[in-house]
Amino acid sequence: MEKMKLKFLYADLQSDIKVIERELETALDSSSHYLKDASLHLLKAGGKRIRPVFVLLAAKFGRYDIHQIKNVAVALELVHMASLVHDDVIDDSELRRGRPTVKSQWNNRVAMYTGDFIFAKAIENITKIENQKAHEILSKTMVEICIGEIIQIEDKMYLEQNIRDYFRRIKRKTALLISSSCYLGAIAAGVDEKVASHLKRFGYYVGMSYQIIDDVLDLTASDKQLGKPAGSDLMQGNITLPVLLVKENADMRPFINQALNGTMKEDERQAFLKKIRQSDAIEESYRISNLYLQKALREVEALPSNSVKKSLKDIAIYMGKRKF
Amino acid sequence: MEKMKLKFLYADLQSDIKVIERELETALDSSSHYLKDASLHLLKAGGKRIRPVFVLLAAKFGRYDIHQIKNVAVALELVHMASLVHDDVIDDSELRRGRPTVKSQWNNRVAMYTGDFIFAKAIENITKIENQKAHEILSKTMVEICIGEIIQIEDKMYLEQNIRDYFRRIKRKTALLISSSCYLGAIAAGVDEKVASHLKRFGYYVGMSYQIIDDVLDLTASDKQLGKPAGSDLMQGNITLPVLLVKENADMRPFINQALNGTMKEDERQAFLKKIRQSDAIEESYRISNLYLQKALREVEALPSNSVKKSLKDIAIYMGKRKF
Repeated sequence: MEKMKLKFLYADLQSDIKVIERELETALDSSSHYLKDASLHLLKAGGKRIRPVFVLLAAKFGRYDIHQIKNVAVALELVHMASLVHDDVIDDSELRRGRPTVKSQWNNRVAMYTGDFIFAKAIENITKIENQKAHEILSKTMVEICIGEIIQIEDKMYLEQNIRDYFRRIKRKTALLISSSCYLGAIAAGVDEKVASHLKRFGYYVGMSYQIIDDVLDLTASDKQLGKPAGSDLMQGNITLPVLLVKENADMRPFINQALNGTMKEDERQAFLKKIRQSDAIEESYRISNLYLQKALREVEALPSNSVKKSLKDIAIYMGKRKF
Repeated sequence: MEKMKLKFLYADLQSDIKVIERELETALDSSSHYLKDASLHLLKAGGKRIRPVFVLLAAKFGRYDIHQIKNVAVALELVHMASLVHDDVIDDSELRRGRPTVKSQWNNRVAMYTGDFIFAKAIENITKIENQKAHEILSKTMVEICIGEIIQIEDKMYLEQNIRDYFRRIKRKTALLISSSCYLGAIAAGVDEKVASHLKRFGYYVGMSYQIIDDVLDLTASDKQLGKPAGSDLMQGNITLPVLLVKENADMRPFINQALNGTMKEDERQAFLKKIRQSDAIEESYRISNLYLQKALREVEALPSNSVKKSLKDIAIYMGKRKF
């Protein structure tokens, strides 16, 4: 996603986002050189800070206090970062956003403990706010995400899965944490349960819409735009929505099998990408993503009037429509 | 450690320990087969449940309610279990307590996510008690343990380290979690800060004493008693107290180098074990362990009179004196 454009959508939050950026740096500071280097490496790689933005926007429906809510925002970004570090071990990824991963720059063991450290720091940050319910929500979210990570391993390479398996997987992989970001932002700011639930569902639908687009882009964007080879998901055994939609096509199946068993050559990858881009699967995936986006927008409509409603809508549309 | 003997030392807690055993099973239950199998595998491998026992004993100095305190005890045992799973990935261990490790039975990736899941479950359990301070203490403990895990990687194979590096390492590896078990048991039961601090320090000293013995036994116990080859620590690059005490000896250095660079053959391992067992290093290590044990016992003396003081002492002595 183009970070610059996105920034315009939450221009009013710029100074608060800077506070969070500084807090992230503090959280990842450590006397261990390995840990410090690996964490700062991650931090400098940037990221859209989507989860903190949702925390802050949701908190605007209640008693907004940046010095309290920053702890929640930092916790959620750290959970996200930790899961990226561990995911890169699983996916054997050498590059993320065009930079070497922690796993490739150091090794799997350092990556595992760096992830553990960042997870623990996330928890430490949420405990800075005295809110029993917030602590419970974050811990339950983490449990569910971890179960999702194992399911992702179980589902890998398994071509007989159906679209429901895919939805179940992206829910845990992406939608849950965005949903919890919105919900926790609201709960920590004392927003009442009904409004908080709308925000929670909003986050869930946005997350689903967003992840589907992400999975489409892995097939339709250029290697350069992605910072890694297009089609990487499939070649790593992760079966995404567009692939599930074409897997019964006789002319696609050989490519899919090659990708999964690791025998796909460069010209075959190019041919596969060309074919799937021309198929209906891309359009159909966009259509499904858009259904989730519309559901997200309906949740925003149900929220009490507030100046940030427009921002929530704009960001949701931006995330659900982006072209890379 | 012989589990049966240890049980006699906390006979009064038997029914409460059973409650915790059931809670552990519930906590590790999951719809994912991988996760369930890996977790139950761990659970059935047993363990001394030392951390839960310390939680319960410490809670006896305050308002003891098993239905509350069980959540703390379970959380601490889960943190311990999760760290074992991740440690086995790092150490490339095939066996623990004579059984295949999660890592060897499945693979490193499953082990990593199983560890993550168990960590998250630990947090979820502590959030069941409404005690802000308890949440803070556990999260900070986890952060410190994770830093320790990275330090352990940094120190690996590095023979120029000194004894202070070793103490720093075993503090984070073992003493911290036992210390926090005692402290959290006390805090969760409303014990006042002064008494809680004595319990915290007691746990720290017991943990130090215990880990030194553990490191000695890796060299002095038989392969059968250990359930893995004696000398494994060194062969995995972990430099322990007895090795630090003999590393300047001209007749020991060649063995140590062989162990560290992975060229040690079976007859050399036998010769090395024989030599180090005859050296002063073993006795000196026992002496240092005993100094910590004495400090632990002094902390017990400072506690208000309570029937469990004797249990605390007995267990500390048992842990600090065990022969395998």
